[in-house]
Amino acid sequence: MHPSEVNLVEVGPRDGLQNESVLVGTDDKVAYIAALADAGLARIEAVSFVHPRLVPQMADAEQVMARVPRRDGLSYIGLIVNERGLERALDSGVDEVNVTVVATETFSQRNQGMTIAGALDSFAAISARAHAAGLGVTATVGASFGCPFEGEVSPDHVAAMVRRCAEAGADEIALADTIGVGVPADVRRLVEAVRAVTDLPLRFHFHNTRNTGYANALAAVEAGASALDASSGGIGGCPFAPAATGNIATEDLAYALRRSRIRTGVDLRQLTVAAAFIGERLGAPLPALLGRAGDFPS
Amino acid sequence: MHPSEVNLVEVGPRDGLQNESVLVGTDDKVAYIAALADAGLARIEAVSFVHPRLVPQMADAEQVMARVPRRDGLSYIGLIVNERGLERALDSGVDEVNVTVVATETFSQRNQGMTIAGALDSFAAISARAHAAGLGVTATVGASFGCPFEGEVSPDHVAAMVRRCAEAGADEIALADTIGVGVPADVRRLVEAVRAVTDLPLRFHFHNTRNTGYANALAAVEAGASALDASSGGIGGCPFAPAATGNIATEDLAYALRRSRIRTGVDLRQLTVAAAFIGERLGAPLPALLGRAGDFPS
Repeated sequence: MHPSEVNLVEVGPRDGLQNESVLVGTDDKVAYIAALADAGLARIEAVSFVHPRLVPQMADAEQVMARVPRRDGLSYIGLIVNERGLERALDSGVDEVNVTVVATETFSQRNQGMTIAGALDSFAAISARAHAAGLGVTATVGASFGCPFEGEVSPDHVAAMVRRCAEAGADEIALADTIGVGVPADVRRLVEAVRAVTDLPLRFHFHNTRNTGYANALAAVEAGASALDASSGGIGGCPFAPAATGNIATEDLAYALRRSRIRTGVDLRQLTVAAAFIGERLGAPLPALLGRAGDFPS
Repeated sequence: MHPSEVNLVEVGPRDGLQNESVLVGTDDKVAYIAALADAGLARIEAVSFVHPRLVPQMADAEQVMARVPRRDGLSYIGLIVNERGLERALDSGVDEVNVTVVATETFSQRNQGMTIAGALDSFAAISARAHAAGLGVTATVGASFGCPFEGEVSPDHVAAMVRRCAEAGADEIALADTIGVGVPADVRRLVEAVRAVTDLPLRFHFHNTRNTGYANALAAVEAGASALDASSGGIGGCPFAPAATGNIATEDLAYALRRSRIRTGVDLRQLTVAAAFIGERLGAPLPALLGRAGDFPS
């Protein structure tokens, strides 16, 4: 099957910025998000509602959401990990919530302070309340391709968690390679396992930690993914940091998709403008390559 | 078809070093090549025989070849572009020559000072003499995926050049994405076009200029490539240079292949040691990510 289109979910303002040490002001965040919307991105994960002590970069989530441009067909996503986050998300006027559960017990307890069973119960409660308020609900299964503490993660185990999330009312399932260890063969295996338990739209979240992120993204589209996360500029992980954990870059992914004749609806030139804007604010070279190498044909 | 193995051709000592501005001494080149051989790489493109005025880094090609370790099953390749290069290659004791022709008229004349027709005639003459001397002969078609001067390159045009090289006696065909513009769909199209004219073993040379290199390499293996070029550390292009043109990194590629259950015969840990050695000599961070991120499972 050759897919003809895929939706790009821009996560630079959330997963990108929250992993950068330079604090970006509210004005600049709003301008960055506006530039991303101007590039044609229809879904933007703009903020996360987590405790500001844990993620200082997201302390102004409400102020950002109060000022982002609104238009038809443009959907803002807030990431949450618990019901307190949901309260803030509902108050702030996001269109969708992305709720993270984690595939392994150790990572779940360290990252979320919850067992897997507790996180799935929490997801069910959040999903019901969010739907009642008219919000879209995505369940992201973190560490779906491997865990920094427990190592290999079985596709059948991930599929079992996905089934629980689907039964609890998720509108979309996102599978995250949180530590960037997967390869295309893993993507295909995971899609097969998950497709055995649900027909929900599949979204993928890849990091390029070991240079497999773009190959995985293209494999996911070929395997039937309807949406891919990416971060403009590839922000969220410096290529020279001890353990680079950057997201795949929206503009590099959009380039690869356009040359693969898969529509994304985004404007590549405007995307590199948005990436350059946030790169200047962060004061660091961007991991993305397209802005340096240029489009082709030029 | 799921391939079970692929050969990695290490091009760090040649394509990697010749694009680095820091001149590396003969002792260090020999030690680097020895470390690569110790990592299990069976084919190493160790030198190029081009005019030292054009590529100062390769001025000591003969001295390097006189001192590299020799063992059964280890083959050294010298890159050449003309018959003068062949003389030097024959005198220096390489096991194979890699002869470059370029897919577009403008690039061929600028890069090689020859028309395409002239380069194909030259290839035929070189091939005959190299075979008479017992050397293996690879024809590399540069700019097979796109040209910086002429833009799009047609797979049928590349296939026509490949047929000429096959008729002239090439033992192997290498298809090079010299400027790093291709995507996996291009790889599959090109393999299909080339397979219509020859059954020779196919080798691919990818640059990661726009973050598509690893996806292309995996797609090439799935399409039936028998060999892939890669450069340990990803040397030959700085990620922060104005136009990054680095090779895909041998260790990152070997990681992706191992997790895809495709055998390469290389030792990942020893590969990162070799990469770290040359990285220190170059005094710059390496584009490769595995050395920073670590293996998985760890």
